[in-house]
Amino acid sequence: MSAALPRPVERLIEAFSRLPGIGPKTASRLAYHLLRGPEGESRELAQALEAVRQGTVFCSQCFNITARETDPCAICQDDGRLAGILCVVEEPLDVLAFERTGRYSGRYHVLHGALSPVEGIGPDDLRIRELLKRVSDEGIQELILAMNPTLEGEATTMYLKGLLAGNPVRLTRLARGLPAGGDLEYADSRTLSEALQGRQEF
Amino acid sequence: MSAALPRPVERLIEAFSRLPGIGPKTASRLAYHLLRGPEGESRELAQALEAVRQGTVFCSQCFNITARETDPCAICQDDGRLAGILCVVEEPLDVLAFERTGRYSGRYHVLHGALSPVEGIGPDDLRIRELLKRVSDEGIQELILAMNPTLEGEATTMYLKGLLAGNPVRLTRLARGLPAGGDLEYADSRTLSEALQGRQEF
Repeated sequence: MSAALPRPVERLIEAFSRLPGIGPKTASRLAYHLLRGPEGESRELAQALEAVRQGTVFCSQCFNITARETDPCAICQDDGRLAGILCVVEEPLDVLAFERTGRYSGRYHVLHGALSPVEGIGPDDLRIRELLKRVSDEGIQELILAMNPTLEGEATTMYLKGLLAGNPVRLTRLARGLPAGGDLEYADSRTLSEALQGRQEF
Repeated sequence: MSAALPRPVERLIEAFSRLPGIGPKTASRLAYHLLRGPEGESRELAQALEAVRQGTVFCSQCFNITARETDPCAICQDDGRLAGILCVVEEPLDVLAFERTGRYSGRYHVLHGALSPVEGIGPDDLRIRELLKRVSDEGIQELILAMNPTLEGEATTMYLKGLLAGNPVRLTRLARGLPAGGDLEYADSRTLSEALQGRQEF
């Protein structure tokens, strides 16, 4: 960057810049903040980074991230969860989003991505085989296909639908419509069309 | 947060959340990215964090951040820099901003903050004494008071102006007006007033 930038600072800025959604300006701001803030703050972040890889694994049942000493994960082990229903999501963060609603009491299955011919991601790159095995082994009655409303998410949904044709498991998907707190005026026409199409009596 | 969140992940999210401008959602996104991305990425960030404190000090002349083995900093040591002019800024990041313009060839003085009675930041908390010493020791002819256009920045500028009353050093400040690429329609009325007041023939 500039001669004014000491190498260790430049290195930290580069490391931050590689993170998603962090541009060079934010990266500089974070680096300088950690330089000037209390030393404990940067040390804690460094140690948390070191610990997170060591301390976590993918749950052997649902493939969500779990503490190394808790496999299957807390959700899979929870007897209070409905056993016959799986919410199929692309990423571990999606599990968090559902858990935050407090309105879902089934279990999950994390695919770790979505089908994308462009990026060369095929069925074997996702946890699809493991999902099919669970459907038969665990006697699943409903799969909520909760992929993102994107081309890749749609493709994955349709692919799974095809795979499970003839299987008695019930396949459902999330409702489409206007987001809560959204402004009709700013809704894109696709969202609005779907909201119109899915309109309900009340 | 949720029972679904393994402790090491929660810890990393908390560490990210403490950074300025990083909300809980961004913190989660960053943590999960580092969990799933190549291991080298999180290790490099951790190591860069550890190294940055060890490897840097404040320049003993201008108080900008510099590599431990380069004190005074590269700018203070650069004989190509004009010696008689100092740009006085609040933060090290402001030095970077000026250096990026490539249009300033003097040296700097970093105050490390601005006066703020509300936050209990007084003159002794800033590098003001050191600035006055440089003005007399180095035979400075011009101080560009480049504090932020905020209440605190203004207060600091006026305080320095008072301190240096009677001193022959020339005090200047940055021009106020419309930002480049800005849209007149969205300019706040203060900026617009200042742009109007400072209008120039062309």
